[in-house]
Amino acid sequence: MLDIYTPEYFMKQAMLEAEKAAQSGEIPVGVVIVSHQRIIARGHNVVEQLGDVTAHAEMIAITAAADYLQNKYLKDCTVYVTLEPCVMCAGALRWSQVGKLVYAAADPKAGFMRYGKELLHPKTKLEYGILESECRALMKTFFTDKR
Amino acid sequence: MLDIYTPEYFMKQAMLEAEKAAQSGEIPVGVVIVSHQRIIARGHNVVEQLGDVTAHAEMIAITAAADYLQNKYLKDCTVYVTLEPCVMCAGALRWSQVGKLVYAAADPKAGFMRYGKELLHPKTKLEYGILESECRALMKTFFTDKR
Repeated sequence: MLDIYTPEYFMKQAMLEAEKAAQSGEIPVGVVIVSHQRIIARGHNVVEQLGDVTAHAEMIAITAAADYLQNKYLKDCTVYVTLEPCVMCAGALRWSQVGKLVYAAADPKAGFMRYGKELLHPKTKLEYGILESECRALMKTFFTDKR
Repeated sequence: MLDIYTPEYFMKQAMLEAEKAAQSGEIPVGVVIVSHQRIIARGHNVVEQLGDVTAHAEMIAITAAADYLQNKYLKDCTVYVTLEPCVMCAGALRWSQVGKLVYAAADPKAGFMRYGKELLHPKTKLEYGILESECRALMKTFFTDKR
């Protein structure tokens, strides 16, 4: 049987979230959180809508996933996000002890990787580059349209 | 005229918030955010109450201050917090472009300063050590009582 629940499938779902953000004039970042092959939480950037710098896609989705699981730790979960998380979101992911983080496009300016993988929990696995060019294109289109 | 609105006054107000956290069985961290000598937001740690690792005192207060000011940037504000912020909260403070951060006790284990002041916004002023022993005592009492 063909397994449709590939990392690419989940990243495409995160891209759908990012597109919702773009449609509202927000920087297009989207997240899904997956537990045992099921999406248990979604989130997109709502910083402008809420006027709240903490309302990044990852923060929204971490809170939603913990609420769904009734457990503040996300040890069995994988977070798929279209852009490399910032330092704030990496810190939140660390506290959540998330099982795995998968991000698409790198963010050399605000991404957490300038401080290295140790910003995450020691048990968190890390993967990146899945659908990188598609997610980078999402950002590029957004900022080109803005100008 | 005697100015009662000293840094110690505001840090004591943050300590009152921390005590509320302790009374609910939360790690006692409290915050007040001050704009033009007025407290515009308060917050204490509600991680256990909400079952949400993102619900640190600083995050709660940043969101509340932005809502009060109807401005997501806190450039004219000072954040008083009883404990050195973690990496997540330092990242949030950076996004808020807060004018000044004052923390009491150091947190060598989870505090942001292991990565240095550059985790904050370049324009954010930093002070620490105000009522340090009192705020450290708050933490110590909490953890001693827990055992």
